[in-house]
Order: sequence, then C-alpha cells, then structure tokens
Amino acid sequence: EVTLTSERYRVQRLPFSRLSDSDVACFERIMPGRVVTDPEELKQFNVDWLKSVRGCSKLMLKPQTTAEVSDVLRYCYERNLAVNPQGGNTGLVGGSVPVFDEIILSTVLMNQIISFDKVSGILVCQAGCILEKLNEYLEEQGFIMPLDLGAKGSCHIGGNVATNAGGLRLLRYGSLRGTVLGLEVVLADGSALDCLASLRKDNTGYDLKQLFIGSEGTLGVITAVSILCPQKPKAVNLAFLGCQSFAKVLETFTTCRAMLGEILSAYEFMDEKCMELVEKHLKLSSPVTGSPFYVLIETSGSSSTHDEEKLNNFLEQAMTSGLVIDGTVATDDKKIKASTWFIWISLIHQMLWSLRERITEALTHDGYVYKYDISLPVGKLYDLVTDMRARLGRSAKNVVGYGHLGDGNLHLNITAESYRHSLLDAIEPFVYEWTARYNGSISAEHGLGFKKKQFIQYSKPSEAVFLMQRFKAMLDPKGILNPYKTLPSSS
Amino acid sequence: EVTLTSERYRVQRLPFSRLSDSDVACFERIMPGRVVTDPEELKQFNVDWLKSVRGCSKLMLKPQTTAEVSDVLRYCYERNLAVNPQGGNTGLVGGSVPVFDEIILSTVLMNQIISFDKVSGILVCQAGCILEKLNEYLEEQGFIMPLDLGAKGSCHIGGNVATNAGGLRLLRYGSLRGTVLGLEVVLADGSALDCLASLRKDNTGYDLKQLFIGSEGTLGVITAVSILCPQKPKAVNLAFLGCQSFAKVLETFTTCRAMLGEILSAYEFMDEKCMELVEKHLKLSSPVTGSPFYVLIETSGSSSTHDEEKLNNFLEQAMTSGLVIDGTVATDDKKIKASTWFIWISLIHQMLWSLRERITEALTHDGYVYKYDISLPVGKLYDLVTDMRARLGRSAKNVVGYGHLGDGNLHLNITAESYRHSLLDAIEPFVYEWTARYNGSISAEHGLGFKKKQFIQYSKPSEAVFLMQRFKAMLDPKGILNPYKTLPSSS
Repeated sequence: EVTLTSERYRVQRLPFSRLSDSDVACFERIMPGRVVTDPEELKQFNVDWLKSVRGCSKLMLKPQTTAEVSDVLRYCYERNLAVNPQGGNTGLVGGSVPVFDEIILSTVLMNQIISFDKVSGILVCQAGCILEKLNEYLEEQGFIMPLDLGAKGSCHIGGNVATNAGGLRLLRYGSLRGTVLGLEVVLADGSALDCLASLRKDNTGYDLKQLFIGSEGTLGVITAVSILCPQKPKAVNLAFLGCQSFAKVLETFTTCRAMLGEILSAYEFMDEKCMELVEKHLKLSSPVTGSPFYVLIETSGSSSTHDEEKLNNFLEQAMTSGLVIDGTVATDDKKIKASTWFIWISLIHQMLWSLRERITEALTHDGYVYKYDISLPVGKLYDLVTDMRARLGRSAKNVVGYGHLGDGNLHLNITAESYRHSLLDAIEPFVYEWTARYNGSISAEHGLGFKKKQFIQYSKPSEAVFLMQRFKAMLDPKGILNPYKTLPSSS
Repeated sequence: EVTLTSERYRVQRLPFSRLSDSDVACFERIMPGRVVTDPEELKQFNVDWLKSVRGCSKLMLKPQTTAEVSDVLRYCYERNLAVNPQGGNTGLVGGSVPVFDEIILSTVLMNQIISFDKVSGILVCQAGCILEKLNEYLEEQGFIMPLDLGAKGSCHIGGNVATNAGGLRLLRYGSLRGTVLGLEVVLADGSALDCLASLRKDNTGYDLKQLFIGSEGTLGVITAVSILCPQKPKAVNLAFLGCQSFAKVLETFTTCRAMLGEILSAYEFMDEKCMELVEKHLKLSSPVTGSPFYVLIETSGSSSTHDEEKLNNFLEQAMTSGLVIDGTVATDDKKIKASTWFIWISLIHQMLWSLRERITEALTHDGYVYKYDISLPVGKLYDLVTDMRARLGRSAKNVVGYGHLGDGNLHLNITAESYRHSLLDAIEPFVYEWTARYNGSISAEHGLGFKKKQFIQYSKPSEAVFLMQRFKAMLDPKGILNPYKTLPSSS
C-alpha cells in the first residue's frame, strides 16, 4: 500500500475548487463515455509506476482531439479546477500522477498518426501515441524514432516530449530539443497554440515550443508532436564487455569513440551489483561474468561489412591492451568467428539489451528504491556510487550504479526492504550536495516532477528559478496545470 | 551610399532618451578607452554587410567582461537608452546594426576561451570568439565546431547563437538548439542569468537558454556559450556533380542518403546561374560545367578506406543510373583513379567549397541583392525559383537558387542594377504568400531582424506572435534591447 503523497511529504492542498456533480456532467457532455469516475478504475492512474507517490483523483478524462482538450481546460480554468496531464504514467519522479484530487487528463485516446513524409523523415502525430508503436510504424518505412527507452512499450510521445526524455539513442541522435520540430499545445486557459511546423529549419521569431519541452505539463498540455526521424540503420551490432575497473570503462569509451566514430550509437555501463539483481529477480543470465563492470556498446550504420570491421578492430585493440577482459559480440550476420568472440544472431540483441533495460524493473523487485538520475563529468561518475556505498554501509540493501556513460549520465539506485525516512535523510541532501560540488545536474533526464522539485537550487541559480516562476505565472496565472510539480513552492 | 534605414523603410524612432555627454562620460568610467565616438570609426558598424540598412549610432561600447555588459545595460535601462548588440555584423536581415541612434554594444573584445574538455568535447567561451578561430583551436585538439558557415572568418559565436545560425554542418550535427548546452545572458535591466552548464543532459526546470537562442538580441545579450563539439572526422571527402534537372538533384539526394548514411555531412545544391556569377565576379572556375544544376556532397567519417568505398559505390550507382552526368571527387588520399573521376588532394577541398560558399559574395558584385531564405518541403524547393523567374522576367538582372537541400533550405536571390521599390513590390509579398501556401518558413536560418519582421505572420499564427510579444514585454519591459527587430510593431 502506497501512502498518499500529501501525507508522506506533508504538502498542503492549494485552494482549487472541489469537483462537483455538475462539473462531471459538463465533462460528460464534452466527451460522452470517456469520463471515468469509478474509484477502482481510477486506482492505477492515481499511483506512479514505482508506487512511490499516490494521489486521490476522482475523475479521469480521455479526450480524443485537441478541441476537446481545449474545452476541458477552458472549463477548468474558469472553475479553478486543478489538472494533472498524464501520458503513459511511466515517470520516475512522481510528475505524472495527481498529488491531491487533480483531474487526470489522459492522452491515452489521442493516438493517431497525422502524417509521415518519407523524403524528409518527419513524423507528425498526436501526443498519446505509444513510443514503441511509433517505432514499429516507422521501421516498416525504413525509419526509426530518434529516442528509445526502457518504458517504450507504454510511454506516450507527448509525455516523452513534456519530460524531455533522454534514453538510449541520445548519444547518436541528440536530444529532443533538436529533433522535435513542432508542437501543438493547449495552454491553461484552453487556448491552443499551433507551432506544429514540419520543417527542419525555421527562424521566424522565438522558439516557443522549447518552453514546453521538459516543462512536465506545468505550462501547457502537448496535444501533437512533429519530430525528425533518422533512417533505420542497415546494420546494428552489439558488444557486451567486462572491465576490471571504472577507469578501464572510461578508457574503453575513449578508445571506442575514436575507433567507431560515427557508427557508435550507445555506450551503456552497469556495475556487477546490477547484473546480480537482474539475474536474481528476473532470471536473466549474462553471457559475460566475473567482472566488476560491464559495458554494452551498440553500433548502427549503413554497411554491415564496414561496421563489423570497425567493431572488430576496436575489440582487438581493447583486448590486446587489456581494457576489456571478456566479451560477447552480436552482429547482424550469421557467420561464427573464431577465438573468444561469439557471433550470434538477431534475437541475441534483445537479450543483451534486456540486461541493461530491465535493471529498473529488477530494482523494484529488490524492495523500496531510492532513485537518483545524475549528470556529472564522466571522470567523476562512479565516485558518487562508491562514496554513497561507504556512507550508507549496511543500512542500505544495495547501492548500484549504471547509465548512459556516453552522455555523462549516472543512474544511482539504493534499495531497502521498505521506505525509511532515516535512510532518506542519510542520502539527501548528501547526494545533491555531492553533485553540486562537481557542477553536475541533480536530474539528467528524469525531470523534477513532484519528488525532486525542492532540490532545483542545487543545479540552478536562484535568478533562473525566479525567471521560471515568472514564466509559469504568465502562462498559467491560476496555477491549475500539474500543480505541486517542477518548481519549488515559493514559500 | 546606403540610405538611412529609417528613411527607406519609413519607420518612426521610438521615444528612447538621446545620448548625452554625461552618458558618454559614464561609459568611459565603466570601460576606459573602449568607448568609440569617432564618426569615421563608427561608420562600418552602422551599416550591414550587404549595405542594405544603415543606422546613425554615435556610440559603440566594447566590453571585455560580463560584469561590464551588466553595468552598461543597467545604466541604459535606467536612462531608457536603446541598445543594439553586435557580433561580427555578418547578418543578412539587418538585425545586427542600429536602425536609429541605438548604442552599439559590440562583443569584439569578449574573445576568450574559458575551457575545453577533451573527454566530453564541451567548449565554454565568451560570446565574441570568432567561429573560425574556435574551429582552428578545436582542430588542434581533434575536435571541430558543430557549425560552419560562409561568414566564419568574422562572425562571433554569440551572434551565431543569438540568430540560431544554421549553415553547412546542420545536416550532420543538428541545430544549435541541440548542441548549445549552456548560455550566460545579461538581461535588459542588467541582471546576469547564469545558465552556463556544461553537461550533456540537464532536466532541472524549464530550459531558459532556448528563449535566447534565435532571439536576435531582443531578449538579452549573450555573453558566454557552452557548446558540444564533435570529434574531428579522420576522413573528409567531397564530390562535385552535375545534374540534368532538379528532379535528378532530388533523386541523387535520396540515393546518396541511403548509400552514404551516417557519413553524409553536407548536400548542397546550386543552379547554373550561381556558377556563372561566381565565375564572372570572383574568377573561380568550376571543374564541372555544362549542367543546369550542381551538387556538392561532403562525407565525414572515421575511416578513409570505408568512406571512399561508400562514396565510390554511390557515384557508380549515380552515374550508371543517369542521375549525374559529370563529376569531380576529392578524397583525402592521393591516388588517381581511372575514368571520369579525378581524385585530388586537400587544397582542392577549399576550392570546391568556395564555389558554394562564395555565392553570397559573388551576388553582391552583381548589383543590389534581394535575398530570401526559405524552408520548403524539398520537392517544392526549386519551383519557387522558376515561378519567380517567370514572374519578374526582364525586370530582374538575375534570379538564382541554391542552398542546403538536405535541410529543405533554399536561398533565393534576385539581383538588379540598383534598389528599386517597384521590383520589391513585384517580389513581396508574392514570395511570402507562395511560401505560406506550402507551409514553409519565410526565414529558415537568417532570422527576421529588421527586414523581415513584418512578415512573421506568413509563418507563425497570431497567437504565437502575441505570446512572443508577451515574452518580450516581460523580459524587456522598456523595449531597449535591439528595438525595431524580430517582432512586428504592434500597431
């Protein structure tokens, strides 16, 4: 059972109106049959995926069109009813669920692809399209989505954009700030803002859409997205390697970036604790064992011959110079190579990626999880894990580190049998102070949501926070959009 | 002689204060010896590179530090003095020069590199660093700037960011919205906003820096930039090809994108008129002649063997299928290949790029230039040139089209012996209406500056323009920063 967020975190409800029967009747007129009031059905939308925060919303709305979103927000703004926009509810910082009784505005039925242009690779779709579905649709046309993440099977593209999701392809295709070309957004007062351009370049005025990317639904509700999609690579190769130390993980990265160059599409690392948990809780077994650190390298390119040659040259170099002690390679073709390398076929890719992608899931089976998503200069990345492990000693069950090394992004996770306030006090603000000392970011890709908003000052100066608050006040003067999120309470 | 902008365009000076002797004395105290009042010295900073707009500023300030920029703006804000931030003054829409007597705030002495991290590739520098100098500095360390443009020898990185410059590497490395990681900005009232993070990922609150990227100095003065720089490619190859029609140019692009994949770094096109002008005015001669269209293809990769193989495969395919009728290839190595292909060495690269990069310069020698920088769906790109040529007939000297085809970006240029209002009337608003009909952008990369701001509504809905005006009013309530630029006069 998850405690109500308001109780655990001792927050006060702001003086929004309470939902009345006539409100529900009005929403029923706007979207007949797509108004949910059944408490049982609402349960799963009131609690986040981690089961760490829970609200008590009594209403979920499922609009299908931008006009319906406009109608809903116009009404809520008028009535001073708070709204929690929700996509696939896969967020990790409590940003996607209500804190109190906010109306849940779900994009689940806004799942239409509007257009795809094969010459430019530009996709336009509604906000509720599921990331994996979009990727499958594109693959049939020879393209892929520029982002990929563990939650792809349920997360919505609108939620991805609203949270500026990073994920596994950022190293190669860059952030959503570069690939998102246009947005349609409904503002707090219900007015729609059409910035849904599908052009690669457009320098006519300020780039308004950027404000909504990463604003976690606090400035407007994203209803449609225009995004630039790369061509599907003809050859994808994976290597799963074991390293003797974190220093070797770093050196392997430098070597691999130099030797693989433009075909390097992912460089993920994980420590042995991660592998233990994945094996223990999910029964996944790693093809490489006995190392304190593991690295998953992906290449994506247009020529399997060239790519394999580059990868093999790199691996040879990494082995002979002692950077890597053991490894498995899965390339696209079927031939078996000699020596320690095993060349497998396509399904192996999925298995290897699972080892990395399902760490989050394995952790939830280990107990209560304290999650941290930190940006740091790569050289300092693992020191935080080591320091934290030493600091917590036996009071934590497990302290693990993994993440997108190529982007300087560490996922630090601490598990315990159950939530304990004393353990939280041992972790925070220590983890934030440590990060601030090295000019890191306390949220690399997860956002601030509800759980991290009070710590923004560790990564942003007060003038910046103040300016953000002015933007919020300008765009949502009544503060009805996803209240209690992103920005600290200005007490 | 260039007419004063205010006279040609019949704009009214806004009621800012007039510069007094005591103002000059005060600035002299803030930055002794770096206050320019000599009318002769000021001349070149009052007029733009195209000599199409001219102001009458009586003062230029050359700060060296962010603190000095703060002091200047705090004073100007207090005194209600208008300010024109200026970088290398290479803009093409009259955004970089005063319209009336605005104080010119030049970044010319803010040219220090603050830091460069070889592991992450992140450069932090002052806004006045010259793009080419930065690139030279990075090349010594095995990196390059993620952008490149014709004006590189004089443009400032701060100006590049303030105008969201596109240029020749956008196809490969993406826009500045993805590569700029942090900014330091001084706001209209003199307060400094430090968002100079040097992290690849940071999701702590709204991304304020994006508002300043592309705002053309109207929201704040960029004083420092943090930018992600790619590794210097080990192999760079060029091909200069002739095509029989624009349809073949498009088909060649599709073929080349599929066959060159991740190593394609530029796909530029130009029509035969461009080549004629470059030859006539700059005495540059093209190695390939007799085609109505030319294409410059660049590859950048990590293996010269692999890259040449890919390029040769593509060229063979393009020749045998009749996409390309003639061509020259310059690869990194020195061996001479048989048949129609000539393999040259490094200096040839510069020559081939000159053919494309110096078109702008050649045009200025042809007479007065009416310049348009349009984004369109690639398939429609050249129709605008054809339609314009038919419409203007003999009233124009030359109508030429060239640009970044890979980005859907056309540079449409019309020359005449001298500026004629009747010719302008024949071009505008026709060109904008044509662009709007195909949902294009009336400014792909040049910005709106002074000359295009009244046409923003052809590419942005009125609600978006209204919101931009609210941002301007919030950040610069007195409107002292680069007045008369970017946003239409709200008459």
